[in-house]
Amino acid sequence: MGIINDNFMLYNDTGRYLYNTYAKNLPIIDYHCHLDPNMIATNIKFKNAYELFLASDHYKWRQMRSNGIDERFITGDGGDYEKWQAFAETMPLLIGNPLYHWTALELKRYFDIDEPLTEDSAASIWDKCGNMLQSDTFSSRHLIERSNVEVICTTDDPFDSLEPHKKIIEDGFSSKVLPTFRPDKAFDIQNPDFNSYIEKTGAKTYNELVSRLCERIEYFHENGCRLSDHSMSFVPFATGNAADIFEKKMNGKELSVKEAEVYKTDIMNRCAEAYAKHGWAMQLHIGALRNNNTRMFNSIGADSGFDSINDMCIAEKLAKLLDNLENYGALPKTIIYTLNPKDNYVIGAMIGNFQSAPVPGKLQFGSGWWFNDNRDGMTSQLTSLANLGILGRFVGMLTDSRSFVSYTRHEYFRRILCNLIGEWVEKGEYPRDEKALKNITEGICYYNAKKYFNF
Amino acid sequence: MGIINDNFMLYNDTGRYLYNTYAKNLPIIDYHCHLDPNMIATNIKFKNAYELFLASDHYKWRQMRSNGIDERFITGDGGDYEKWQAFAETMPLLIGNPLYHWTALELKRYFDIDEPLTEDSAASIWDKCGNMLQSDTFSSRHLIERSNVEVICTTDDPFDSLEPHKKIIEDGFSSKVLPTFRPDKAFDIQNPDFNSYIEKTGAKTYNELVSRLCERIEYFHENGCRLSDHSMSFVPFATGNAADIFEKKMNGKELSVKEAEVYKTDIMNRCAEAYAKHGWAMQLHIGALRNNNTRMFNSIGADSGFDSINDMCIAEKLAKLLDNLENYGALPKTIIYTLNPKDNYVIGAMIGNFQSAPVPGKLQFGSGWWFNDNRDGMTSQLTSLANLGILGRFVGMLTDSRSFVSYTRHEYFRRILCNLIGEWVEKGEYPRDEKALKNITEGICYYNAKKYFNF
Amino acid sequence: MGIINDNFMLYNDTGRYLYNTYAKNLPIIDYHCHLDPNMIATNIKFKNAYELFLASDHYKWRQMRSNGIDERFITGDGGDYEKWQAFAETMPLLIGNPLYHWTALELKRYFDIDEPLTEDSAASIWDKCGNMLQSDTFSSRHLIERSNVEVICTTDDPFDSLEPHKKIIEDGFSSKVLPTFRPDKAFDIQNPDFNSYIEKTGAKTYNELVSRLCERIEYFHENGCRLSDHSMSFVPFATGNAADIFEKKMNGKELSVKEAEVYKTDIMNRCAEAYAKHGWAMQLHIGALRNNNTRMFNSIGADSGFDSINDMCIAEKLAKLLDNLENYGALPKTIIYTLNPKDNYVIGAMIGNFQSAPVPGKLQFGSGWWFNDNRDGMTSQLTSLANLGILGRFVGMLTDSRSFVSYTRHEYFRRILCNLIGEWVEKGEYPRDEKALKNITEGICYYNAKKYFNF
Repeated sequence: MGIINDNFMLYNDTGRYLYNTYAKNLPIIDYHCHLDPNMIATNIKFKNAYELFLASDHYKWRQMRSNGIDERFITGDGGDYEKWQAFAETMPLLIGNPLYHWTALELKRYFDIDEPLTEDSAASIWDKCGNMLQSDTFSSRHLIERSNVEVICTTDDPFDSLEPHKKIIEDGFSSKVLPTFRPDKAFDIQNPDFNSYIEKTGAKTYNELVSRLCERIEYFHENGCRLSDHSMSFVPFATGNAADIFEKKMNGKELSVKEAEVYKTDIMNRCAEAYAKHGWAMQLHIGALRNNNTRMFNSIGADSGFDSINDMCIAEKLAKLLDNLENYGALPKTIIYTLNPKDNYVIGAMIGNFQSAPVPGKLQFGSGWWFNDNRDGMTSQLTSLANLGILGRFVGMLTDSRSFVSYTRHEYFRRILCNLIGEWVEKGEYPRDEKALKNITEGICYYNAKKYFNF
Repeated sequence: MGIINDNFMLYNDTGRYLYNTYAKNLPIIDYHCHLDPNMIATNIKFKNAYELFLASDHYKWRQMRSNGIDERFITGDGGDYEKWQAFAETMPLLIGNPLYHWTALELKRYFDIDEPLTEDSAASIWDKCGNMLQSDTFSSRHLIERSNVEVICTTDDPFDSLEPHKKIIEDGFSSKVLPTFRPDKAFDIQNPDFNSYIEKTGAKTYNELVSRLCERIEYFHENGCRLSDHSMSFVPFATGNAADIFEKKMNGKELSVKEAEVYKTDIMNRCAEAYAKHGWAMQLHIGALRNNNTRMFNSIGADSGFDSINDMCIAEKLAKLLDNLENYGALPKTIIYTLNPKDNYVIGAMIGNFQSAPVPGKLQFGSGWWFNDNRDGMTSQLTSLANLGILGRFVGMLTDSRSFVSYTRHEYFRRILCNLIGEWVEKGEYPRDEKALKNITEGICYYNAKKYFNF
Repeated sequence: MGIINDNFMLYNDTGRYLYNTYAKNLPIIDYHCHLDPNMIATNIKFKNAYELFLASDHYKWRQMRSNGIDERFITGDGGDYEKWQAFAETMPLLIGNPLYHWTALELKRYFDIDEPLTEDSAASIWDKCGNMLQSDTFSSRHLIERSNVEVICTTDDPFDSLEPHKKIIEDGFSSKVLPTFRPDKAFDIQNPDFNSYIEKTGAKTYNELVSRLCERIEYFHENGCRLSDHSMSFVPFATGNAADIFEKKMNGKELSVKEAEVYKTDIMNRCAEAYAKHGWAMQLHIGALRNNNTRMFNSIGADSGFDSINDMCIAEKLAKLLDNLENYGALPKTIIYTLNPKDNYVIGAMIGNFQSAPVPGKLQFGSGWWFNDNRDGMTSQLTSLANLGILGRFVGMLTDSRSFVSYTRHEYFRRILCNLIGEWVEKGEYPRDEKALKNITEGICYYNAKKYFNF
């Protein structure tokens, strides 16, 4: 039999009670994901299990490579079913890996399949999924609706048109699908494509670029955006003349590491000021080390499963970055995510330095992200936050996903959360106070995010 | 019902047995705290629950800010009861936070209050505490006596008079209240107040400063001091001419980061040599990143809840600092605390490099400190130490507190310790050897510290 | 009674079943240890318990020092029995330390002694062991045979003759005893002994040195070697002219830190290329900070218990080192070990960047090493690997030991592994799939290593 049942990840009665009574049926606010809004706007369907589960999921590609499978059957010209079969063969070895649980949840919740995916069951599951995927109830929008999703925040370039988002609203789709402002390309001055990116924005000078970005923040805001997002391999903080550095770069000169850091710091400050003015939340995703395999990057490009975890010291610069914004009254609501669990206590303590009225939990320690998006990583983030701050004010889970069946990760998170709270209660470390437990559970699963983002 | 009962934090029979039989009734040696010795010398009383619990506790202020409470009701001109009410409202959200347990323990042990503190119970608890605080049994000295405290080590500047300590002895107070030599202000050459501090010492040259410090070590020793304490944001180790750097600084010149490090290294060496000569224990508190919020620092100053955890690499320099002292025979007994749990294994292994006869556990990995002073942080420190060194030689817990009701943290620690040992025994990972378990439990709770410090 | 019984470290039925059914009786492939091959070639015997257990075990010396024992009774001129007695006195305090479990396992499995070693039992255990050690069944070869060891890989200098290894084969010894190529002395250009070491190799230039090393790789390969091993305090990656730097050094000049790093990077690349060509696995042991106590180093030398854990940032340089090799097709099978558990997620994620067909698990996150070779360290490595990669492809345990009775560490590992897997199954996080569980358990304990190394 399969592993997904009512008690999955729930190992105590109180946890089961909290999950079933308070957590289970709350809508989902998925405030950070990488879904392509076009795929929602066009309400696409999926040809087969490969297209739905494998075609764009570099988490799975990575594990298939770890299993010694030839790239031909991962991202190459192998057939869809051959790839599915190769994935199915990998599955049973993934004991203890979140992919094992995610896949089981996805097969159960969307296809009512209990049988574990293995080399033996690959064919029958392929057939069953394939048949069901022909139905309209498996279109992108139906998958979202069936998942009880109230809000989706996609991840968008400042100069994206947001046409898909508008189309979705015009169609009267029941879930809000909102853009997120992610200006990484305007920040990443050392990227070989920086100059061509800037040229497309029409900005001739640094001040023009800042103005263009501020206009786009305005435009995003009008289109419902309430969040920005920044990816940082390390935390920049250095002072200097960003305008001169920008000009130097646009003139084709090489920049030093320090100059790039000055630029990133300054443009971060400018954008953060605009976010604060609009009441947005700013997300900082710290610590990804990207595109580590040059051979494969040259072959199949970015976001293909060749990224990992950086380990630089972040405390001092992060403190200065936030302090500087706070000092001139420009610190927005901020969610800090770290890819390196060694930073959990650093972040958990850091947010306490900048909390201030009137927003409860103005600074947030973001949920276990990417390589931490697993039972242990989530538990570590939750307990670090609980030990150092106010767990009861946490805005909770997000999928960070490219897949339309990842909403089960909210279920996974809610089960783990309720289990942890239940364990504390049953051990006698927190009283059996119904009102407080309802408030905490419902808050973390739904209401805290609803109030915090105010979409 | 409240959470504090006989089995609080004790989840196995052996743990309960060890706690009740060996740990519970041992006296407390609180070898590091931040109590104001004047408040003991004058045997002060507390007007109300706010004064006792909230007025000087930046741990609580921090969580109140995280809950979105206005600073007016934290450190501002709000009324005492309004602040208490705001704190009570915050409490139920602090699930999983040590403050929740500490507060419950403090209310139970000193006021026999079982009811959890919430917005609903705030008023009745305020009244009950207020009435009891009028009694003489709630004066600072009575609180200490009722807590079975044998020794208290306060934290003092080298040039403090130690008059309060003398007064306490003259009064024949039953607990020893001893000073600790903490020369941070003489070390922190980059602090804006350094020059004025040095001028007050009367030292004109570096050698004069060292002489003055050595005189004060002598004076502290005569007054019962047996410990020093050093706060280090990072571990300094650099060689050079400290006297020249001191002179440069006193002449109003700016110092480089390297020069400051040379100075700190040299003065550390000079002081450590004196500590070793007097048989003192030297405490190194590594990794606090202080005063991160400039706006609030300018408003309400240091030690107000705006500090967090640094994350620099410490292994190489810490090794060199200790090796250098060891090499010229000047390494005192040393207790190393880290604020960053990523360093637990680094410290746990580092102390093993410098252990030597005749002192058992001459180098100590200090108990989970500040942001680690919680169930998980203590457990992590205890298991790291057990895996890497000799847990049975650990000198145990200290409050590090500014409050007269924090002695319950020793109870909290003892329960967690006994639970951990009991768990190992019940799993069969350590034999049920009464003699050994008594020796270990009593040692860590009391006797190891008693022998190690030899007050 | 003693702690070693059938259920030791096995806390659930499934774990017990997996251990007894699949793990317990598999042969041992001990692919990394520090046994002296001469001691196998000469089939030595041990005079007494001191010689077998204490004489060359710096893990134990370290804990004896922590217990305040005089060096005379550790490595000095104290008598064998006095040292044994001092060790026995230390034992009961080592609650939670792996030495406690290792010693209990060793006494039980090789001497059938249940009684815990304490000051009280020291004499009787000394006598019992002493008597048994007279028997031929306690010679080095008999100990290996009785431990069901299929393969041993020793650790050897490139210029070692490998005569002992040849002798062992000639004798028709039942276990394979193979060399491992560890060229640390040729890499460590900052070591005071570097020049004299190089002179002995006969190499006059850098290219000659590389040629000599490649010849020795060939020679080692002919003698059955299939692994190399590298100890790195930090991960080097810097580009430049290694030949010039080598020449400078051989001319007696001082090198900068950067120059040393360039040299280490280049020679690493040259060797790795040769390893890849021979189908070897390359082991990187990252993060030891060695010889931290100069006084004791001068007195008793290296590998005496004065090493600990470094904490430098490793992610970026490790990524570049591996990427560079991958990029020119010279990345061998690689096993990365870290001494600092803060790196567990960095390594666990890093290996995923370079996995590629046809070798399953081509890059491996090595088992918990040295200071991590304990219940918590192994569990942390196993769960990190499971969360980030494919646990089912892990090549498993090794002793890393200098002792002939350390094979019980494989038992210890297998129990901990089966307990972990069993716990997941009993919680319902992995299905009770006999075929998959057999495959995973037997794979990690034996078959994965057998296929991966292909001795």
